[in-house]
Amino acid sequence: MATEAQIKATIARYQETFSSGDKQGWLGLFVEDGTVEDPVGSVPRKGRAEIGQFWDEVHATLRGITTEVTMGPAVAGHEAALAFEARLELDNGTFILPIIDVMTFADDGRLVSMRAFVDGGSLRPAS
Amino acid sequence: MATEAQIKATIARYQETFSSGDKQGWLGLFVEDGTVEDPVGSVPRKGRAEIGQFWDEVHATLRGITTEVTMGPAVAGHEAALAFEARLELDNGTFILPIIDVMTFADDGRLVSMRAFVDGGSLRPAS
Repeated sequence: MATEAQIKATIARYQETFSSGDKQGWLGLFVEDGTVEDPVGSVPRKGRAEIGQFWDEVHATLRGITTEVTMGPAVAGHEAALAFEARLELDNGTFILPIIDVMTFADDGRLVSMRAFVDGGSLRPAS
Repeated sequence: MATEAQIKATIARYQETFSSGDKQGWLGLFVEDGTVEDPVGSVPRKGRAEIGQFWDEVHATLRGITTEVTMGPAVAGHEAALAFEARLELDNGTFILPIIDVMTFADDGRLVSMRAFVDGGSLRPAS
């Protein structure tokens, strides 16, 4: 099983690559048949091709997106959860969107699955 | 399926009953064969007798415990996630423990399962 340090390193790199727009670095954090369910309840994207398409869709609608962790990651065995705020740059302003990610990891520390609980009702303008 | 309003009402009541020490009110929020996995990775408690035992164990080690939600709940279908801080009153002081709960709900809004990602590494004295 991956160590807590390995899992935390993957999550740190996940946040870094996502916020810096490093699509290939971000995709490389997943196992080949990894899944992304964002938001929870949507059809999961499976494999790097579909996950890459998800990345493209997110970035096509935004001028920019960065994230800031507000709680965690709390690692438990091969799973982890973290709370963060996504900062969304839109044509009409900048908004903060609270999100909780729940993730599972392979023995080598790569991501097997990511599920995003998006608190859309708490979307607010950035102060 | 339970509505978002039903799920949010259950979570609000969950936090209220837990913080006020209302064991029976808290237990009543679960379906008969509900499960609690707290922390994630421990053997899940199943059914109200085992969940009640979990409550007793938590409260036996503490002078008091209250919770304050810091993010969410983010509701998605029959699932929800929230981040909160547990305030633990111990013999040697008061401590803040960050936790992320992931929950599933029955059609009537009652809790089917609760899993707690406990960020033990971020335990800190209350300021």
